[in-house]
Amino acid sequence: MASSSSPTETRSPELRKDPINNRWVIFSPARAKRPSDFKSKSSSENQNSNSSSSCPFCFGNEHHCAPEIFRDSPDPNVDWKIRVIQNLYPALSRDIGGETEGHPDGEKSGFPGRVVPGVGFHDVVIETPVHSVHLSDLGPTQVGEVLLAYKKRIEQIKERDLIKYVQVFKNHGASAGASLSHSHSQILALPVIPPTVSGRLCSMKEYFDQTGKCGLCEVQPKDLLIDETTYFTSIVPFAATFPFEIWIIPQYHSSHFHDLDSEKAIDLGGLLKLMLRKLSMQLNNPPFNFMIHTSPLQVTDSQSPYSHWYLQIVPQLTGVGGFEIGTGCYINPVFPDDAAKVLREV
Amino acid sequence: MASSSSPTETRSPELRKDPINNRWVIFSPARAKRPSDFKSKSSSENQNSNSSSSCPFCFGNEHHCAPEIFRDSPDPNVDWKIRVIQNLYPALSRDIGGETEGHPDGEKSGFPGRVVPGVGFHDVVIETPVHSVHLSDLGPTQVGEVLLAYKKRIEQIKERDLIKYVQVFKNHGASAGASLSHSHSQILALPVIPPTVSGRLCSMKEYFDQTGKCGLCEVQPKDLLIDETTYFTSIVPFAATFPFEIWIIPQYHSSHFHDLDSEKAIDLGGLLKLMLRKLSMQLNNPPFNFMIHTSPLQVTDSQSPYSHWYLQIVPQLTGVGGFEIGTGCYINPVFPDDAAKVLREV
Ligand SMILES: Nc1ncnc2c1ncn2[C@@H]1O[C@H](COP(=O)(O)OP(=O)(O)O[C@H]2O[C@H](CO)[C@@H](O)[C@H](O)[C@H]2O)[C@@H](O)[C@H]1O
Ligand SMILES: Nc1ncnc2c1ncn2[C@@H]1O[C@H](COP(=O)(O)OP(=O)(O)O[C@H]2O[C@H](CO)[C@@H](O)[C@H](O)[C@H]2O)[C@@H](O)[C@H]1O
Repeated sequence: MASSSSPTETRSPELRKDPINNRWVIFSPARAKRPSDFKSKSSSENQNSNSSSSCPFCFGNEHHCAPEIFRDSPDPNVDWKIRVIQNLYPALSRDIGGETEGHPDGEKSGFPGRVVPGVGFHDVVIETPVHSVHLSDLGPTQVGEVLLAYKKRIEQIKERDLIKYVQVFKNHGASAGASLSHSHSQILALPVIPPTVSGRLCSMKEYFDQTGKCGLCEVQPKDLLIDETTYFTSIVPFAATFPFEIWIIPQYHSSHFHDLDSEKAIDLGGLLKLMLRKLSMQLNNPPFNFMIHTSPLQVTDSQSPYSHWYLQIVPQLTGVGGFEIGTGCYINPVFPDDAAKVLREV
Repeated sequence: MASSSSPTETRSPELRKDPINNRWVIFSPARAKRPSDFKSKSSSENQNSNSSSSCPFCFGNEHHCAPEIFRDSPDPNVDWKIRVIQNLYPALSRDIGGETEGHPDGEKSGFPGRVVPGVGFHDVVIETPVHSVHLSDLGPTQVGEVLLAYKKRIEQIKERDLIKYVQVFKNHGASAGASLSHSHSQILALPVIPPTVSGRLCSMKEYFDQTGKCGLCEVQPKDLLIDETTYFTSIVPFAATFPFEIWIIPQYHSSHFHDLDSEKAIDLGGLLKLMLRKLSMQLNNPPFNFMIHTSPLQVTDSQSPYSHWYLQIVPQLTGVGGFEIGTGCYINPVFPDDAAKVLREV
């Protein structure tokens, strides 16, 4: 990148709103410095270029990491199974010196109301101490424990009034954005409600107003069904944005992911593991992302009947171009019922 | 991709709406078959892997292309300078057999109102007959002529009532989504108004209702200014989604790109060329996209005071991950005033 990026490095993160497109952007110069296992984002997937000895997420290298928030080590013989730590190159700051309310930058820049200080939490969940183990290699209970670690962290974060929404996500593979290959996911707690979340609430409200029902409780999987468990259904959505995209939807109505109990977490863990293995087998271990789409931390009584969380898995097979950036519409070469058939086969 | 994609190949394209996220997706199995100059989307940029002799867009290979719509050949000694042709692997079909209105698929699938037949136009603009010439190598007048080719094609398309919005865009480089390296851009004419466009109109209306002014006429570039010409201003937007993103905004109020006259087209051509050269020099010939953000073909009298077209240029430097897919928020490591400074320097 260009030479004069150094002056930016001391600036605090900031959220700015594009009033034309009604979109928030996080400005975070610190992010530019984070290390990468992959020589170049555009070079071919090279999952092991950072060996276990230099990987900060490996067992024994804990001192190379930003501070730990908590660890999961149920077995006294095992040091830890899961660690939740601070992100060393956070997009948002835990504290930016008294500026947490009524930041003056908006006025200073002549753009009142368009700037929010970049305060929030940005954590990493290390899913296993072992470098070569992937999430889908863990057993259903262990995947469930990772999900319970998300839940526990969200419950801590929700005590802070400043935080409006918590996004849990995972990047696997360089083309899915991952900079480190050791199996991990991230938790980003935001001081604003992101546009996709408020947009989703609006659409769900519209459906509810018309039908009296929750749009996700009403999903009829039919030929879009991949599998189901006691509490969850996995489908290819009818209007899947990406080829072989999967949604895992709770069959019970629930606004918040973090209301998941242990039994449901293990049930979901098994289904998530299965979906990741199916993608890996049918699409040759593709890069992928998953995202937990939950509700804003504060949900009003009138919103709860139509807010329903779900987990979205997206294998990264196609990439996007100017059409998608311009329109927000996507071109998907694979019809959902065909994708569901392929995923049911294994 | 998985084996059983063959049954999908005979299906007509279809637009489906995701009612949860209020987003349209184009299903287009034909797209999966298009050729690529780049061995793999994730391999390093290899701009010349398809040589001039096998490139369908090169002079002399016109017979390898889908039908021509028109050509620009002002000089009788030159066969052509610019060609506008049909896309051989169109995302939307010019005609899908009488199904152009009231498609029954919605009801058939139990999803009434969520399916629109995939009718529209998908064209390619070949910007030069010469394989190794890039858009920024052309002179201001020649770039202006490319812009006038877009205008001419949009004016043809707008005669069709079915078309609601026309997206013009360019992909340069594999990481920006390009599958062919010969300099070209695309025109996609849609039977729906895409979400970013209706969202933008909403935000602009809100600003207009509050201030009585058009949000883009009112942009105060200050330290975000890169350059200006007689009719246009180029800036890094205050809430730039991507590092080194550039907007070129007409200084005169205008809803539609296609109202551009020849004088303004040449003026814009010069500024566009300059911006592409600046990006190339400061960021080492990065992959990039540009998109023309115009208004729906039909704009009401009440909408015109606040609808204002602009051109967005996005160098692809960072890639995205699960956070961006999940929230629609972006993380930008470079503050806009720093980016503008870097781009003013050359
Ligand atoms: N020693 C250490 N201790 C603690 N944390 C450490 C660390 N060393 C590195 N980290 C952090 O570990 C994280 C690893 O995350 P990922 O590999 O999922 O992708 P990353 O966040 O880099 O970017 C991807 O995801 C984001 C969000 O979706 C996109 O903005 C981006 O374009 C995409 O590449 C990084 O966020 C990094 O800051
Ligand atoms: N002989 C021929 N005659 C006529 N046309 C021919 C042809 N041979 C190929 N084509 C067409 O030429 C176009 C070249 O376009 P680009 O290189 O800009 O990217 P493409 O559209 O493939 O995909 C990128 O852009 C789209 C839209 O943004 C994204 O969906 C996608 O992920 C990204 O890779 C293709 O659309 C192809 O169908």
